[in-house]
Amino acid sequence: MPQIALLTDFGTRDWFVPVMKTVIYSINPRVRIIDISHDILPQNIAEASFVLWNAANQFPAKTIFVTVVDPGVGSARKIIAVETEQHVFISPANGVLDLVLSEKNIKKSVWVENRKYFLDNISSTFHGRDIFAPVAAHISKGVKLRELGEDAAYRAQKSPFCDAAEPGKYRGTVLYIDRFGNLITNLRVKAGIEGYAKVGNRKAKMVSTYSDVQHGQLLAYRGSSGLLEIAVRDGSAQRKLTARYYMTVELKLR
Amino acid sequence: MPQIALLTDFGTRDWFVPVMKTVIYSINPRVRIIDISHDILPQNIAEASFVLWNAANQFPAKTIFVTVVDPGVGSARKIIAVETEQHVFISPANGVLDLVLSEKNIKKSVWVENRKYFLDNISSTFHGRDIFAPVAAHISKGVKLRELGEDAAYRAQKSPFCDAAEPGKYRGTVLYIDRFGNLITNLRVKAGIEGYAKVGNRKAKMVSTYSDVQHGQLLAYRGSSGLLEIAVRDGSAQRKLTARYYMTVELKLR
Amino acid sequence: MPQIALLTDFGTRDWFVPVMKTVIYSINPRVRIIDISHDILPQNIAEASFVLWNAANQFPAKTIFVTVVDPGVGSARKIIAVETEQHVFISPANGVLDLVLSEKNIKKSVWVENRKYFLDNISSTFHGRDIFAPVAAHISKGVKLRELGEDAAYRAQKSPFCDAAEPGKYRGTVLYIDRFGNLITNLRVKAGIEGYAKVGNRKAKMVSTYSDVQHGQLLAYRGSSGLLEIAVRDGSAQRKLTARYYMTVELKLR
Repeated sequence: MPQIALLTDFGTRDWFVPVMKTVIYSINPRVRIIDISHDILPQNIAEASFVLWNAANQFPAKTIFVTVVDPGVGSARKIIAVETEQHVFISPANGVLDLVLSEKNIKKSVWVENRKYFLDNISSTFHGRDIFAPVAAHISKGVKLRELGEDAAYRAQKSPFCDAAEPGKYRGTVLYIDRFGNLITNLRVKAGIEGYAKVGNRKAKMVSTYSDVQHGQLLAYRGSSGLLEIAVRDGSAQRKLTARYYMTVELKLR
Repeated sequence: MPQIALLTDFGTRDWFVPVMKTVIYSINPRVRIIDISHDILPQNIAEASFVLWNAANQFPAKTIFVTVVDPGVGSARKIIAVETEQHVFISPANGVLDLVLSEKNIKKSVWVENRKYFLDNISSTFHGRDIFAPVAAHISKGVKLRELGEDAAYRAQKSPFCDAAEPGKYRGTVLYIDRFGNLITNLRVKAGIEGYAKVGNRKAKMVSTYSDVQHGQLLAYRGSSGLLEIAVRDGSAQRKLTARYYMTVELKLR
Repeated sequence: MPQIALLTDFGTRDWFVPVMKTVIYSINPRVRIIDISHDILPQNIAEASFVLWNAANQFPAKTIFVTVVDPGVGSARKIIAVETEQHVFISPANGVLDLVLSEKNIKKSVWVENRKYFLDNISSTFHGRDIFAPVAAHISKGVKLRELGEDAAYRAQKSPFCDAAEPGKYRGTVLYIDRFGNLITNLRVKAGIEGYAKVGNRKAKMVSTYSDVQHGQLLAYRGSSGLLEIAVRDGSAQRKLTARYYMTVELKLR
């Protein structure tokens, strides 16, 4: 069964997401739709990029990822579709795919322009319904990227991730703050390493799990994405450190 | 595949929505359930009406819409089912269907009274599970409205929408405020019109898309529902204008 | 069609829940997944327990309930699977199942330990993906509990619910506060009883439905779970009474 995964900042109070779904089902009733999230902060490309990177790394092959998060919604911004060995990605051409594609082989990229695969009457403000949903549904039925438009010659960006494997000092940044207030960084770490992380003048000891520190204490650990994370046991590192996106995190490995 | 669309103010923290779904699946395992929203503000009929109107206009034929939003939940309020050319609607008889039905031909309307299609033990406070879910599931399996109860003689209300097509001045109201803080009005406008909208003493120029104004500026445009909307580029019109439902909006077309 | 019901505190902004779903579908594409809720307050076992108890009592037989709410996430906490006449439950062994199992016959309980049914590379912090999701999917395909690990000898706890059937005075506590601010207690009541409930020095008359009291007034009634609930018509009892979990509620039946 082909699978379409949706990632938007549309929220769940309005009618935008269910309308996208009915458009998809009306074109391909046999597709499975999975919601990644619709609660991305409005127009927050950084947040969407990171969630997409994580989801895509853990989703099965042949998933079609539809990401609709764009500060320039309704502008003349082009829409891009990119095919990798595993997946297809469709999004506004605003860089939201750069992170997820930074470590992938690009097989094909095109501008999404062929109106044959759009809804008949295109509004200028709801491209999710009028373009993204029908194009994804058509791809799930076998339409090839080359049928959608001209070659976009997308080149993968340099990965922002950094390996912190050997003893020494590393400097990273906060890429994401999750719902529990955990800070996720761009530093790739291995299981079992020892040392500590520093945010401002606060130290967090590297441990393997939450229960290795006391209630309320800071900890640093290898998160489920393989990245260094900073958390507070039974609390929020975001609150304790008044943390922000892209804040510097230092890591000292022994 | 028949399709049931759910719209409630039940939220997503409690067990109400999943229980409704299992009741539906237990009666008709082959139905598709689509969540329109469960985040309608508690008992807010205006908000539910507008979301339902939008969803229904964009959903495929043969969808069964179940709306459970009612300030008088658990009261002796009757439940109504209405069939149009395209859809079936079930809701408390509290007016929440008036907007969506204002522009439709009513084929049949009935009071939902036949206990044969309810769950066996009816609570006085969870009609979503005990009445709405099983009745919708039975309709999706082919039960006709006339089997549900007496004729309700529902008459479509006058549409609150107003066409603003010719040059001149129009006075409308805010019907809905979406998650981005955009104000959606009752004024139907065409693509390509020129002029400006006014909320209080603040002017918003008619443009065709967000990127036609500067960051932080007000704009007026034809939204994806064909209605005049007021927004702020990269911001919230609701906050900038301290806007409220039913606030007056003036429109001057050149 | 087998059915897996998910209850977590993962929220809907991150990638945790959709990743769990794709793991389940990749093992058993023919299962139905139902979200109970992902909006349980972080690590709040009391809240999860009550939502699970309610959902389980209203879900069809053969549902597999996966509950991932745990203050000790990532610790060495064991994972337990319990089979009753109707259902299978999987959760951290932290007591979150005690309420739902308090009134059930336990057929079998095991520690979830057999790595054959886990994902290949187990992270220390995302057991939802690595253990809970694949184990639930394998059970939905017919794997028996005895294949998962050693017998856990789980014994049902004493039920915290108390029958308030005869005239007299009862003392109960608030077990749950729902999204509308209604207080749900541990007192089991029958339909049609008369009397009043007391929270602090505020009285709430027993009525059969919201419309039996005036706008803004307190009421007590038999909720859809058969328990005494305290509410405010068109308002929030939580706000009006500054209520908290486990607050005392007195009930006087005539």
